Amino acid sequence: MEAPPLLVQPDPSDPRLTRRVSGVDHTGALVEASVTVERPLTLYLNGQEVVTMMTILDLPEDLALGYLLNQNMLKRGDRVTGVEYDDDLGVVVVRTEARTDFETKLRKKTLTSGCAQGTAFGDLLEDFESARLPAEAEVRTSWLYRLLHRINTLPTLYLEAGAIHGCALCERDRPLVYMEDVGRHNAVDKIAGWMFRHDTAPGDKIFYTTGRLTSEMVIKTVRMGIPVLVSRSGFTAWGVELARQAGLTLIGRCKGRRFLALAGQDRIVFDADLRYVEEESAKHWRKNSREAEAAGSDGAAG
Amino acid sequence: MEAPPLLVQPDPSDPRLTRRVSGVDHTGALVEASVTVERPLTLYLNGQEVVTMMTILDLPEDLALGYLLNQNMLKRGDRVTGVEYDDDLGVVVVRTEARTDFETKLRKKTLTSGCAQGTAFGDLLEDFESARLPAEAEVRTSWLYRLLHRINTLPTLYLEAGAIHGCALCERDRPLVYMEDVGRHNAVDKIAGWMFRHDTAPGDKIFYTTGRLTSEMVIKTVRMGIPVLVSRSGFTAWGVELARQAGLTLIGRCKGRRFLALAGQDRIVFDADLRYVEEESAKHWRKNSREAEAAGSDGAAG
Repeated sequence: MEAPPLLVQPDPSDPRLTRRVSGVDHTGALVEASVTVERPLTLYLNGQEVVTMMTILDLPEDLALGYLLNQNMLKRGDRVTGVEYDDDLGVVVVRTEARTDFETKLRKKTLTSGCAQGTAFGDLLEDFESARLPAEAEVRTSWLYRLLHRINTLPTLYLEAGAIHGCALCERDRPLVYMEDVGRHNAVDKIAGWMFRHDTAPGDKIFYTTGRLTSEMVIKTVRMGIPVLVSRSGFTAWGVELARQAGLTLIGRCKGRRFLALAGQDRIVFDADLRYVEEESAKHWRKNSREAEAAGSDGAAG
Repeated sequence: MEAPPLLVQPDPSDPRLTRRVSGVDHTGALVEASVTVERPLTLYLNGQEVVTMMTILDLPEDLALGYLLNQNMLKRGDRVTGVEYDDDLGVVVVRTEARTDFETKLRKKTLTSGCAQGTAFGDLLEDFESARLPAEAEVRTSWLYRLLHRINTLPTLYLEAGAIHGCALCERDRPLVYMEDVGRHNAVDKIAGWMFRHDTAPGDKIFYTTGRLTSEMVIKTVRMGIPVLVSRSGFTAWGVELARQAGLTLIGRCKGRRFLALAGQDRIVFDADLRYVEEESAKHWRKNSREAEAAGSDGAAG
């Protein structure tokens, strides 16, 4: 049975996203390689410069909206009146009907400590306590294994050029949207922006990332309202702590038939017959070790 | 022959760096796992709040100094009069004799656009054109293979708990300092801070990272004055471009006997007999795929 196509998936053949460069290999032989293109994008919220990000720049509007939402600079209540991207300037502007809390706070804050970044990070946790995820949502191990197989066999930019990160928005055993970027958080943010623009209900979704399950990743997933977060990578302690606080199901080190759930285990339905789930082959390991390498720089800080 | 010990290397047994948490595995069985601890650290430059970083918080002073140096917020000319870390507040303050350009610029800037982060990123490229790396420095493939073997067999936090990134400052075939952190850039910055405090000459060093060879990683290595940057991960196009501009030797996808050099190849001496260099085993791939997974969130931006 043919799996249904994704609504959004990477286009490794897009010439703007990779470049051929020449070099030498370990034998000293001249070789050509495909490398991922990263470009700076400066984000404005109305008149307020917010941040300059490095991105593959495939979906600047989704990235801009998602970044502001996930940083809690844009609240669900804020009415977005437009998102304008200027390719020459490498600038994207998100406009809202009224000035946002963030702008007001920032204006106040910058007159004192002058730090947008500190503020932004502080705001990440704001409203986190009040976040509620649907308890009735479930994730079946049979879905999980089909999802991972599907995701690992998608044509991706990383297969073309490596050094890139992937995230998928999934429903049951089906990935709906797969996005990649040089910054792990960019990929998450682009999906958040896409969900916002398409008014996607998050309560029955599963979020997959190639990156680690850190506090920031947990906070963003909770802010997006998605009850299940899955990764092939590991956990940080604060990520686990926050996931337990918010009632997020946190599944990591997810490879072949193995995984580890450190929060919200009660949503997991163990319906897969493990005798019929393949372990990852060495070939897989190679592929996935390259995939995992894609994890990395997520921006200016730290 | 016993290899000499490193000057600094991770202490996986340090109880502050990992935590045991319980969960379930793929069979539904109750299990305990070690996870990496990440803590927020807020950095001040004199009176100026700069950023809040997530870190394993093993070396806050090195991280603070290195971050400011690598972000070009602290110039070599600035005389550092003190670095104070307050464990209760999770705050580190770097004090300089005179107010820094960064503070002055920021104060000016914040009154207009109010964005510290944008400024910081803009400043990354400042002075980059004028940076010069020693042309006579060399890197022998025999050193490279010994370095990688040594680094891959170090006891590390990632082996204990995963979800962490590693960087090494090396001289010839010897890793001198190996540092890890939840943020790839934290590991780099901590080494920059350590080099600053120990007044380490960079011109004959080799820098190794588990993370990708992005523009930021290249800019930081050049700013640190190190002529050779090595990674097991891939490249981004701008990373390659900047490395060529600055005359940095950029070696990536470095695994087993294979690697790819996309800039500064002329520094490479191919002296290793490849018949005696092992390919990575599947076991290695597992280890390294876990290692690579450690790459990820590097902070608040992007």
